[in-house]
Amino acid sequence: MGNLKANMTMSLDGFVAGPNQSASDPLGVGGEQLHSWLLSLKAFRESHGEEGGEVNTSTPFAEEILGNVGATIMGRNMFGGGPGPWDQAWRGYWGENPPYHHPVFVLTRHSRAPLEMEGGTTFHFVTDGIEWALEHARTAAGAKDISIGGGASAVQQYLAAGLVDELVISLVPILLGAGARLFENLGEPPPPLRQVEAVEAPGVTHLRYVRGS
Amino acid sequence: MGNLKANMTMSLDGFVAGPNQSASDPLGVGGEQLHSWLLSLKAFRESHGEEGGEVNTSTPFAEEILGNVGATIMGRNMFGGGPGPWDQAWRGYWGENPPYHHPVFVLTRHSRAPLEMEGGTTFHFVTDGIEWALEHARTAAGAKDISIGGGASAVQQYLAAGLVDELVISLVPILLGAGARLFENLGEPPPPLRQVEAVEAPGVTHLRYVRGS
Repeated sequence: MGNLKANMTMSLDGFVAGPNQSASDPLGVGGEQLHSWLLSLKAFRESHGEEGGEVNTSTPFAEEILGNVGATIMGRNMFGGGPGPWDQAWRGYWGENPPYHHPVFVLTRHSRAPLEMEGGTTFHFVTDGIEWALEHARTAAGAKDISIGGGASAVQQYLAAGLVDELVISLVPILLGAGARLFENLGEPPPPLRQVEAVEAPGVTHLRYVRGS
Repeated sequence: MGNLKANMTMSLDGFVAGPNQSASDPLGVGGEQLHSWLLSLKAFRESHGEEGGEVNTSTPFAEEILGNVGATIMGRNMFGGGPGPWDQAWRGYWGENPPYHHPVFVLTRHSRAPLEMEGGTTFHFVTDGIEWALEHARTAAGAKDISIGGGASAVQQYLAAGLVDELVISLVPILLGAGARLFENLGEPPPPLRQVEAVEAPGVTHLRYVRGS
Protein backbone atom coordinates (compact mmCIF):
# COMPACT_ATOMS: atom_id res chain seq x y z
CA MET A 1 0.00 0.00 0.00
CA GLY A 2 1.37 3.40 -0.92
CA ASN A 3 1.92 6.32 1.43
CA LEU A 4 -0.13 9.46 1.69
CA LYS A 5 2.24 12.32 1.12
CA ALA A 6 2.28 16.01 0.50
CA ASN A 7 5.03 18.02 -1.22
CA MET A 8 4.53 21.70 -0.58
CA THR A 9 6.66 24.69 -1.46
CA MET A 10 6.52 27.22 1.35
CA SER A 11 7.90 30.72 1.86
CA LEU A 12 10.17 31.28 4.84
CA ASP A 13 7.30 33.07 6.53
CA GLY A 14 5.00 30.07 6.13
CA PHE A 15 2.84 30.73 3.08
CA VAL A 16 2.08 28.33 0.21
CA ALA A 17 0.34 31.06 -1.79
CA GLY A 18 0.41 34.83 -1.64
CA PRO A 19 -2.45 37.19 -0.72
CA ASN A 20 -5.51 37.90 -2.88
CA GLN A 21 -5.78 34.47 -4.48
CA SER A 22 -8.46 34.35 -7.14
CA ALA A 23 -9.63 32.21 -10.04
CA SER A 24 -7.36 34.18 -12.35
CA ASP A 25 -4.44 34.32 -9.88
CA PRO A 26 -4.49 31.04 -7.93
CA LEU A 27 -1.01 31.54 -6.40
CA GLY A 28 -1.83 35.04 -5.16
CA VAL A 29 0.38 38.12 -5.23
CA GLY A 30 4.04 37.10 -5.38
CA GLY A 31 3.15 33.41 -5.21
CA GLU A 32 4.70 32.59 -8.57
CA GLN A 33 8.14 33.12 -7.00
CA LEU A 34 7.55 30.07 -4.81
CA HIS A 35 7.92 27.54 -7.59
CA SER A 36 10.82 28.98 -9.59
CA TRP A 37 13.14 26.31 -8.11
CA LEU A 38 10.91 23.65 -9.72
CA LEU A 39 10.09 25.34 -13.01
CA SER A 40 13.76 25.86 -13.87
CA LEU A 41 14.55 22.14 -13.68
CA LYS A 42 15.09 19.84 -16.65
CA ALA A 43 13.00 17.18 -14.87
CA PHE A 44 10.03 19.52 -14.72
CA ARG A 45 10.46 20.89 -18.22
CA GLU A 46 10.71 17.41 -19.71
CA SER A 47 7.49 16.37 -18.00
CA HIS A 48 5.82 19.30 -19.72
CA GLY A 49 7.34 18.50 -23.10
CA GLU A 50 9.90 21.29 -23.00
CA GLU A 51 13.63 21.22 -23.67
CA GLY A 52 16.50 22.43 -21.50
CA GLY A 53 16.58 23.21 -17.83
CA GLU A 54 18.86 22.61 -14.88
CA VAL A 55 19.94 19.47 -13.08
CA ASN A 56 20.89 20.06 -9.45
CA THR A 57 20.25 18.78 -5.92
CA SER A 58 16.57 19.67 -6.30
CA THR A 59 16.18 17.19 -9.16
CA PRO A 60 15.33 14.12 -7.02
CA PHE A 61 12.65 16.14 -5.25
CA ALA A 62 11.10 17.20 -8.54
CA GLU A 63 11.19 13.61 -9.77
CA GLU A 64 9.49 12.54 -6.57
CA ILE A 65 6.70 15.07 -7.09
CA LEU A 66 6.31 13.95 -10.68
CA GLY A 67 6.72 10.20 -10.21
CA ASN A 68 5.48 7.10 -8.36
CA VAL A 69 2.17 8.77 -7.63
CA GLY A 70 -0.93 6.71 -8.44
CA ALA A 71 -3.57 9.20 -7.38
CA THR A 72 -3.85 12.81 -6.27
CA ILE A 73 -6.24 14.43 -3.82
CA MET A 74 -6.87 18.16 -4.01
CA GLY A 75 -9.17 20.81 -2.65
CA ARG A 76 -11.77 22.37 -4.85
CA ASN A 77 -9.89 25.67 -5.16
CA MET A 78 -6.91 23.77 -6.49
CA PHE A 79 -9.07 22.25 -9.22
CA GLY A 80 -10.37 25.73 -9.86
CA GLY A 81 -13.44 27.71 -9.07
CA GLY A 82 -15.24 29.11 -6.06
CA PRO A 83 -17.95 27.70 -3.77
CA GLY A 84 -21.45 26.71 -4.80
CA PRO A 85 -22.82 24.17 -7.25
CA TRP A 86 -20.73 23.30 -10.27
CA ASP A 87 -20.97 24.86 -13.68
CA GLN A 88 -20.88 21.54 -15.52
CA ALA A 89 -19.09 23.15 -18.43
CA TRP A 90 -16.13 24.19 -16.26
CA ARG A 91 -13.13 21.93 -16.79
CA GLY A 92 -10.78 23.39 -14.18
CA TYR A 93 -7.47 25.21 -14.27
CA TRP A 94 -5.37 22.48 -15.72
CA GLY A 95 -6.12 22.53 -19.44
CA GLU A 96 -7.27 19.60 -21.54
CA ASN A 97 -4.18 17.53 -20.72
CA PRO A 98 -3.52 18.05 -17.00
CA PRO A 99 -0.05 17.17 -15.68
CA TYR A 100 -1.32 14.39 -13.39
CA HIS A 101 -1.89 11.46 -15.79
CA HIS A 102 -3.72 9.54 -13.05
CA PRO A 103 -7.01 9.79 -11.13
CA VAL A 104 -7.48 13.02 -9.18
CA PHE A 105 -9.98 13.24 -6.33
CA VAL A 106 -11.38 16.70 -5.74
CA LEU A 107 -12.77 17.50 -2.26
CA THR A 108 -16.07 19.33 -2.67
CA ARG A 109 -19.49 19.73 -1.13
CA HIS A 110 -21.26 19.51 -4.47
CA SER A 111 -21.69 16.38 -6.55
CA ARG A 112 -20.57 16.18 -10.11
CA ALA A 113 -20.01 13.38 -12.61
CA PRO A 114 -16.36 12.37 -13.19
CA LEU A 115 -14.53 14.46 -15.75
CA GLU A 116 -12.22 12.57 -18.04
CA MET A 117 -9.42 14.60 -19.54
CA GLU A 118 -6.67 13.77 -22.01
CA GLY A 119 -3.48 11.96 -20.98
CA GLY A 120 -4.91 9.70 -18.28
CA THR A 121 -6.21 12.30 -15.83
CA THR A 122 -9.78 11.86 -14.62
CA PHE A 123 -11.19 14.21 -11.99
CA HIS A 124 -13.51 12.55 -9.47
CA PHE A 125 -15.58 14.81 -7.23
CA VAL A 126 -15.83 13.50 -3.67
CA THR A 127 -18.50 14.88 -1.37
CA ASP A 128 -18.29 12.45 1.55
CA GLY A 129 -15.19 13.78 3.30
CA ILE A 130 -11.44 13.38 3.43
CA GLU A 131 -11.41 9.78 4.70
CA TRP A 132 -13.52 8.57 1.80
CA ALA A 133 -11.49 10.55 -0.69
CA LEU A 134 -8.42 8.77 0.67
CA GLU A 135 -10.13 5.38 0.37
CA HIS A 136 -11.06 6.04 -3.24
CA ALA A 137 -7.55 7.31 -3.95
CA ARG A 138 -5.92 4.27 -2.32
CA THR A 139 -7.98 1.93 -4.45
CA ALA A 140 -7.04 3.87 -7.58
CA ALA A 141 -3.35 4.13 -6.67
CA GLY A 142 -2.76 0.45 -5.93
CA ALA A 143 0.82 0.08 -4.71
CA LYS A 144 1.76 3.63 -5.64
CA ASP A 145 1.71 6.68 -3.39
CA ILE A 146 -1.14 9.11 -3.03
CA SER A 147 -0.25 12.79 -3.19
CA ILE A 148 -2.18 15.64 -1.63
CA GLY A 149 -1.85 18.26 -4.33
CA GLY A 150 -3.03 21.15 -2.12
CA GLY A 151 -4.15 23.72 -1.33
CA ALA A 152 -3.26 24.53 2.23
CA SER A 153 -6.69 23.58 3.57
CA ALA A 154 -6.65 20.07 2.08
CA VAL A 155 -3.20 19.40 3.53
CA GLN A 156 -4.27 20.80 6.91
CA GLN A 157 -7.31 18.52 7.08
CA TYR A 158 -5.24 15.40 6.41
CA LEU A 159 -2.50 16.51 8.82
CA ALA A 160 -5.03 17.24 11.58
CA ALA A 161 -6.58 13.80 11.06
CA GLY A 162 -3.14 12.19 11.44
CA LEU A 163 -3.38 10.63 7.99
CA VAL A 164 -0.28 12.09 6.34
CA ASP A 165 2.62 9.62 6.20
CA GLU A 166 5.19 11.98 4.76
CA LEU A 167 5.47 15.71 4.30
CA VAL A 168 8.14 17.36 2.15
CA ILE A 169 8.48 21.11 2.59
CA SER A 170 10.51 22.91 -0.04
CA LEU A 171 11.39 26.06 1.85
CA VAL A 172 12.27 29.10 -0.23
CA PRO A 173 13.89 32.27 1.15
CA ILE A 174 11.13 34.66 0.20
CA LEU A 175 8.79 36.55 2.51
CA LEU A 176 5.25 36.86 1.14
CA GLY A 177 3.92 38.73 4.18
CA ALA A 178 0.40 37.35 3.77
CA GLY A 179 -1.50 34.64 1.96
CA ALA A 180 -2.41 31.00 2.57
CA ARG A 181 -0.55 29.68 5.60
CA LEU A 182 0.27 25.96 5.57
CA PHE A 183 0.70 25.23 9.28
CA GLU A 184 -2.53 26.30 10.95
CA ASN A 185 -5.86 24.69 11.85
CA LEU A 186 -3.98 21.53 12.80
CA GLY A 187 -5.95 20.66 15.93
CA GLU A 188 -4.88 20.32 19.55
CA PRO A 189 -2.47 18.73 20.08
CA PRO A 190 -1.06 19.18 16.59
CA PRO A 191 0.26 16.05 14.87
CA PRO A 192 3.80 15.03 15.82
CA LEU A 193 6.35 15.14 13.00
CA ARG A 194 9.83 13.71 12.79
CA GLN A 195 12.55 15.20 10.61
CA VAL A 196 14.19 12.56 8.43
CA GLU A 197 16.08 14.60 5.84
CA ALA A 198 17.13 18.13 4.96
CA VAL A 199 18.77 18.84 1.61
CA GLU A 200 20.29 22.15 0.59
CA ALA A 201 19.71 23.07 -3.05
CA PRO A 202 20.09 26.31 -5.04
CA GLY A 203 17.61 28.80 -3.58
CA VAL A 204 15.60 26.21 -1.66
CA THR A 205 15.94 23.66 1.14
CA HIS A 206 13.98 20.42 0.99
CA LEU A 207 12.82 19.21 4.40
CA ARG A 208 11.33 15.74 4.77
CA TYR A 209 9.16 14.86 7.76
CA VAL A 210 7.28 11.68 8.63
CA ARG A 211 4.47 11.11 11.07
CA GLY A 212 5.55 10.46 14.64
CA SER A 213 7.81 12.00 17.25
CA MET B 1 33.59 45.75 11.62
CA GLY B 2 31.50 42.82 12.78
CA ASN B 3 28.20 41.70 11.32
CA LEU B 4 24.77 42.12 12.86
CA LYS B 5 23.32 38.65 13.12
CA ALA B 6 20.45 36.81 14.68
CA ASN B 7 20.33 33.11 15.51
CA MET B 8 16.76 32.06 16.21
CA THR B 9 15.26 28.66 16.87
CA MET B 10 11.87 28.45 15.22
CA SER B 11 9.09 25.85 15.16
CA LEU B 12 8.04 24.50 11.79
CA ASP B 13 4.91 26.63 12.07
CA GLY B 14 6.94 29.79 12.55
CA PHE B 15 7.02 30.50 16.28
CA VAL B 16 10.03 31.41 18.41
CA ALA B 17 8.04 31.11 21.64
CA GLY B 18 4.78 29.39 22.53
CA PRO B 19 1.50 31.04 23.60
CA ASN B 20 0.88 32.71 26.96
CA GLN B 21 4.40 34.01 27.49
CA SER B 22 4.80 35.61 30.91
CA ALA B 23 7.50 36.75 33.31
CA SER B 24 7.52 33.29 34.87
CA ASP B 25 7.24 31.45 31.52
CA PRO B 26 9.18 33.51 28.97
CA LEU B 27 9.18 30.77 26.32
CA GLY B 28 5.40 30.24 26.57
CA VAL B 29 3.50 26.96 26.53
CA GLY B 30 5.58 24.27 24.82
CA GLY B 31 8.36 26.72 24.03
CA GLU B 32 10.97 24.83 26.04
CA GLN B 33 10.91 22.11 23.35
CA LEU B 34 12.39 24.58 20.88
CA HIS B 35 15.83 24.61 22.41
CA SER B 36 16.36 20.97 23.27
CA TRP B 37 18.72 20.59 20.27
CA LEU B 38 20.98 23.23 21.87
CA LEU B 39 20.68 22.25 25.52
CA SER B 40 21.75 18.66 24.83
CA LEU B 41 25.07 19.71 23.31
CA LYS B 42 28.46 19.45 24.99
CA ALA B 43 29.32 22.91 23.62
CA PHE B 44 26.35 24.43 25.40
CA ARG B 45 26.81 22.47 28.63
CA GLU B 46 30.49 23.40 28.84
CA SER B 47 29.65 27.09 28.44
CA HIS B 48 27.37 26.71 31.46
CA GLY B 49 29.96 24.84 33.51
CA GLU B 50 28.33 21.43 33.08
CA GLU B 51 29.83 18.10 32.05
CA GLY B 52 28.76 15.71 29.29
CA GLY B 53 26.56 16.36 26.30
CA GLU B 54 26.52 15.50 22.62
CA VAL B 55 28.75 16.48 19.74
CA ASN B 56 26.97 16.43 16.37
CA THR B 57 26.36 18.51 13.24
CA SER B 58 24.64 21.15 15.41
CA THR B 59 27.86 21.79 17.35
CA PRO B 60 29.30 24.46 15.01
CA PHE B 61 26.00 26.35 15.20
CA ALA B 62 26.02 26.27 19.00
CA GLU B 63 29.63 27.46 19.01
CA GLU B 64 28.65 30.26 16.68
CA ILE B 65 25.87 31.36 19.03
CA LEU B 66 28.23 31.20 21.97
CA GLY B 67 31.36 32.63 20.36
CA ASN B 68 32.83 35.59 18.43
CA VAL B 69 30.06 37.86 19.68
CA GLY B 70 31.21 41.15 21.14
CA ALA B 71 27.83 42.60 22.06
CA THR B 72 24.19 41.53 22.21
CA ILE B 73 21.05 43.54 21.59
CA MET B 74 17.76 42.33 23.07
CA GLY B 75 14.21 43.47 23.61
CA ARG B 76 13.02 44.37 27.05
CA ASN B 77 10.93 41.21 27.42
CA MET B 78 14.03 39.16 26.76
CA PHE B 79 15.82 40.89 29.61
CA GLY B 80 12.75 40.27 31.69
CA GLY B 81 9.78 42.23 32.90
CA GLY B 82 6.76 43.95 31.46
CA PRO B 83 6.13 47.51 30.28
CA GLY B 84 6.33 50.63 32.40
CA PRO B 85 9.12 52.23 34.41
CA TRP B 86 11.80 49.98 35.84
CA ASP B 87 11.84 48.55 39.30
CA GLN B 88 15.47 49.44 39.94
CA ALA B 89 15.91 46.38 42.13
CA TRP B 90 15.00 44.02 39.23
CA ARG B 91 18.08 42.34 37.80
CA GLY B 92 16.46 40.44 34.94
CA TYR B 93 15.95 36.79 34.08
CA TRP B 94 19.53 35.83 33.69
CA GLY B 95 20.84 35.36 37.19
CA GLU B 96 23.88 37.06 38.69
CA ASN B 97 26.26 35.60 36.10
CA PRO B 98 24.42 35.86 32.74
CA PRO B 99 25.68 33.68 29.88
CA TYR B 100 26.67 36.66 27.69
CA HIS B 101 30.00 37.79 29.18
CA HIS B 102 29.93 40.96 27.09
CA PRO B 103 27.88 44.18 26.94
CA VAL B 104 24.15 43.68 26.35
CA PHE B 105 21.99 46.52 25.03
CA VAL B 106 18.33 46.32 26.09
CA LEU B 107 15.77 48.13 23.92
CA THR B 108 13.35 49.96 26.22
CA ARG B 109 11.30 53.13 26.48
CA HIS B 110 12.39 53.78 30.04
CA SER B 111 15.81 54.97 31.16
CA ARG B 112 17.84 53.11 33.68
CA ALA B 113 21.47 53.17 34.80
CA PRO B 114 23.70 50.37 33.44
CA LEU B 115 23.55 47.14 35.43
CA GLU B 116 26.87 45.39 35.87
CA MET B 117 26.62 41.67 36.51
CA GLU B 118 29.23 39.02 37.22
CA GLY B 119 31.30 37.43 34.47
CA GLY B 120 31.64 40.41 32.15
CA THR B 121 27.99 41.05 31.32
CA THR B 122 26.75 44.62 31.71
CA PHE B 123 23.20 45.50 30.69
CA HIS B 124 22.82 48.91 29.08
CA PHE B 125 19.31 50.30 28.66
CA VAL B 126 18.84 52.10 25.35
CA THR B 127 15.85 54.42 24.92
CA ASP B 128 16.75 56.14 21.65
CA GLY B 129 15.83 53.42 19.17
CA ILE B 130 17.25 50.44 17.33
CA GLU B 131 19.77 52.38 15.23
CA TRP B 132 21.38 53.90 18.30
CA ALA B 133 21.39 50.59 20.10
CA LEU B 134 23.27 49.17 17.10
CA GLU B 135 25.76 52.06 17.17
CA HIS B 136 26.44 51.52 20.86
CA ALA B 137 26.75 47.76 20.30
CA ARG B 138 29.15 48.22 17.37
CA THR B 139 31.40 50.41 19.44
CA ALA B 140 31.38 47.87 22.25
CA ALA B 141 31.90 44.88 19.94
CA GLY B 142 34.91 46.24 18.05
CA ALA B 143 35.81 43.71 15.35
CA LYS B 144 33.46 41.06 16.73
CA ASP B 145 29.90 40.36 15.66
CA ILE B 146 26.79 41.81 17.25
CA SER B 147 24.01 39.37 18.02
CA ILE B 148 20.31 40.16 18.30
CA GLY B 149 19.34 37.93 21.20
CA GLY B 150 15.58 38.26 20.63
CA GLY B 151 12.74 38.31 21.12
CA ALA B 152 10.78 38.20 17.91
CA SER B 153 9.96 41.90 17.97
CA ALA B 154 13.59 43.02 18.27
CA VAL B 155 14.60 40.80 15.34
CA GLN B 156 11.64 42.03 13.29
CA GLN B 157 12.57 45.68 13.81
CA TYR B 158 16.15 45.12 12.64
CA LEU B 159 15.01 42.98 9.69
CA ALA B 160 12.43 45.58 8.62
CA ALA B 161 15.11 48.28 8.77
CA GLY B 162 17.38 46.20 6.51
CA LEU B 163 20.11 46.14 9.15
CA VAL B 164 20.52 42.37 9.64
CA ASP B 165 23.56 40.98 7.83
CA GLU B 166 22.96 37.33 8.63
CA LEU B 167 20.06 35.30 9.94
CA VAL B 168 20.39 31.69 11.10
CA ILE B 169 17.13 29.86 11.62
CA SER B 170 17.35 26.59 13.52
CA LEU B 171 14.12 24.96 12.39
CA VAL B 172 12.70 22.27 14.65
CA PRO B 173 9.90 19.87 13.64
CA ILE B 174 7.43 20.89 16.30
CA LEU B 175 4.13 22.68 15.85
CA LEU B 176 3.35 25.16 18.63
CA GLY B 177 0.05 26.30 17.12
CA ALA B 178 0.33 29.80 18.56
CA GLY B 179 2.83 32.13 20.19
CA ALA B 180 5.37 34.68 19.04
CA ARG B 181 5.80 34.55 15.28
CA LEU B 182 9.21 35.50 13.92
CA PHE B 183 8.38 36.50 10.35
CA GLU B 184 5.77 39.23 10.59
CA ASN B 185 5.73 43.02 10.79
CA LEU B 186 8.59 43.11 8.29
CA GLY B 187 7.39 46.04 6.21
CA GLU B 188 6.46 46.29 2.55
CA PRO B 189 8.33 45.09 0.63
CA PRO B 190 9.86 42.72 3.15
CA PRO B 191 13.67 42.53 3.18
CA PRO B 192 15.22 40.23 0.55
CA LEU B 193 17.11 37.24 1.91
CA ARG B 194 19.48 34.85 0.20
CA GLN B 195 19.98 31.27 1.33
CA VAL B 196 23.66 30.46 1.78
CA GLU B 197 23.61 27.21 3.77
CA ALA B 198 21.30 24.49 5.06
CA VAL B 199 22.63 21.85 7.44
CA GLU B 200 20.71 18.81 8.59
CA ALA B 201 21.32 17.88 12.22
CA PRO B 202 19.53 15.54 14.66
CA GLY B 203 16.04 16.95 15.18
CA VAL B 204 16.80 20.33 13.66
CA THR B 205 17.87 21.97 10.39
CA HIS B 206 20.09 25.04 10.46
CA LEU B 207 19.31 27.52 7.68
CA ARG B 208 21.62 30.43 7.03
CA TYR B 209 20.46 33.51 5.15
CA VAL B 210 22.20 36.76 4.32
CA ARG B 211 20.80 40.10 3.27
CA GLY B 212 20.13 40.47 -0.45
CA SER B 213 18.44 38.58 -3.23
